[in-house]
Amino acid sequence: MSPTPNQPMTYAASGVDIEAGDRAVGLIEQLTRRTHGPRVMAESGAFAAMFRLDYNEKLFKRNYTDPVLVACTDGVGTKVKLAIEMGVLDTVGIDCVAMNVNDLVVQGAEPLFFLDYLGLNRQDPEQTAAIVRGVSRGCEIAGCALIGGECAEMPAIYAEGDFDLAGFAVGVVELSRAIDPERVEAGDQIIGLASDGVHSNGFSLVRAILREKKLSLDERDPALAAEDGVAPTLGETLLTPTRIYAQPIVKLLRQYKIKRVVSGMAHITGGGLPGNVNRALPDGLDARIRRDAWTVPPIFDVLQKHGDIDDEEMFRVFNMGIGYVLIVRPAFANSILQQLTRSGERPALIGEVVAGRGEVVWA
Amino acid sequence: MSPTPNQPMTYAASGVDIEAGDRAVGLIEQLTRRTHGPRVMAESGAFAAMFRLDYNEKLFKRNYTDPVLVACTDGVGTKVKLAIEMGVLDTVGIDCVAMNVNDLVVQGAEPLFFLDYLGLNRQDPEQTAAIVRGVSRGCEIAGCALIGGECAEMPAIYAEGDFDLAGFAVGVVELSRAIDPERVEAGDQIIGLASDGVHSNGFSLVRAILREKKLSLDERDPALAAEDGVAPTLGETLLTPTRIYAQPIVKLLRQYKIKRVVSGMAHITGGGLPGNVNRALPDGLDARIRRDAWTVPPIFDVLQKHGDIDDEEMFRVFNMGIGYVLIVRPAFANSILQQLTRSGERPALIGEVVAGRGEVVWA
Repeated sequence: MSPTPNQPMTYAASGVDIEAGDRAVGLIEQLTRRTHGPRVMAESGAFAAMFRLDYNEKLFKRNYTDPVLVACTDGVGTKVKLAIEMGVLDTVGIDCVAMNVNDLVVQGAEPLFFLDYLGLNRQDPEQTAAIVRGVSRGCEIAGCALIGGECAEMPAIYAEGDFDLAGFAVGVVELSRAIDPERVEAGDQIIGLASDGVHSNGFSLVRAILREKKLSLDERDPALAAEDGVAPTLGETLLTPTRIYAQPIVKLLRQYKIKRVVSGMAHITGGGLPGNVNRALPDGLDARIRRDAWTVPPIFDVLQKHGDIDDEEMFRVFNMGIGYVLIVRPAFANSILQQLTRSGERPALIGEVVAGRGEVVWA
Repeated sequence: MSPTPNQPMTYAASGVDIEAGDRAVGLIEQLTRRTHGPRVMAESGAFAAMFRLDYNEKLFKRNYTDPVLVACTDGVGTKVKLAIEMGVLDTVGIDCVAMNVNDLVVQGAEPLFFLDYLGLNRQDPEQTAAIVRGVSRGCEIAGCALIGGECAEMPAIYAEGDFDLAGFAVGVVELSRAIDPERVEAGDQIIGLASDGVHSNGFSLVRAILREKKLSLDERDPALAAEDGVAPTLGETLLTPTRIYAQPIVKLLRQYKIKRVVSGMAHITGGGLPGNVNRALPDGLDARIRRDAWTVPPIFDVLQKHGDIDDEEMFRVFNMGIGYVLIVRPAFANSILQQLTRSGERPALIGEVVAGRGEVVWA
């Protein structure tokens, strides 16, 4: 790529492939459009994406008299490295959306739109499209619009084949209905929603275990076998996308418009149950959780066995099978369990709120 | 960091320093708080940040009857590598904010809030705080609130000392006042605002030139000397933060509430004047720009000379001294020039809109 000393230098010769960038943009445009509803004012060439709040439309006005925007950003973390090693690029985008929209709905918000940032070594339009395909799929699952993104070619930062993927999500919540820890009361019941495995946290530890114990991603551990007896590879199990809880939660909150039956929620990420459910608690109350109330998925046993990791550390790093937690008024626990089941979730009553110090304690 | 074979593995031993992360969070909290106005509902421990639209407040209601959210994401690109090499980490955050909010105001939007994503090798709280200090400073200059961010420790992706920084900005514009290329007319005048040098684009080429020509970042080229005769180093000149045009532009648009005197705008990034001003034009009109209407800053001459780059390539890659462009009604050009000067900008009349094909042509 280096020009000879007396040859004029160009931007292309410095390693940036503008044509490949344009081709990637074309592929991405198709992927984003399928997530666009009538509120997206897509204009090709625009410097920034536009999203109508539907301020003047009756539906929005009926739902929101004092809307608060809710926003967050998160990446996929070291899980991207696993995807790169396996050559499977079209699922981490789902993780990226999940990590963000699950955080949004914890505040009681309805996700509106999403943008992604992809930093990489060299623009490969097909690979970029594969990554964004996952983001687009995640936005479809979450019911939000993918309205923008940036793909930055940075050979000085990213090694060949490497990339990083981060996302930004914006939602809206009616001020009086935003989730507030002070609303939680002793006696409230704790519902856990099943995770789809490791999700997107703890992958530095996962990769350390793989490295130390010389485990192959292609290994098929019988412990991971499905009911039909066929075990996926360790890599396939680990790469399973983070579950997106947005739609069932939004639907549940809409169902109980007047009564405030959900007093708190938590997305179980780094820190596990103890490091996330505590964020939903006021100072004087604990969440007493019964670890025997659900079955820990086998992937965690496999990781614990190979890593010789103690129980407390496992629960501090991983979700251990519970990806999302709701704290609900006891009188409504059963109907909420039923509704979440109807929405396709696997919910379980895993504990209750008791007097304490704002912590998670094991029953 | 590797545990001996029979020692239990922990998350910390896998290379993730949780304590350093907590310390970084503490340092960052102080930096973000200074950007918070009354619309930020900051709650420590919240899963996502909350920002009031002031829906029910009179001021907001008076300004917006049909508000549209405007959002974009962008990073600093390869300029971060220069910052890393120079060990100067507290300015790329300004670039990061600039790249985003300048794009927002092009759509006519008022920036509301900002979030940043920082991917790095290892959490060094002081270095992270230095980076976020720049982001916070940028938000102050832009008049928007830094309401959230993510710092991801990913030794598997980022080499030691390396990082990537991306940002995400959200603004609001009244639907009827959003900038629309169809509003541009033949005869409209083109105003260019001076850039503060290279800004945040073309750094892959800049670094290629430095490498090929074995130039040192510590070099002091007399061509770069200020009026007092003292030349900054090449590195210092290149690292000068991207100018943030948000406040002067927002102020200007507020001034002309009823009359639509600004018909189009463009933030001059990768692609230069030809690749960005065209985005503000309808199909049948060209922007005829007089290159002799402003003085190209000496850093571009230095780069062109060392890289032996031809003029057209220079104008396709770099801003060449014009960082932001406004297309305005001719009758108001002078008063707009005056107001922008009062706001601290260095504006110049650089061309006019003529019949054509939606392109930039040189006069």
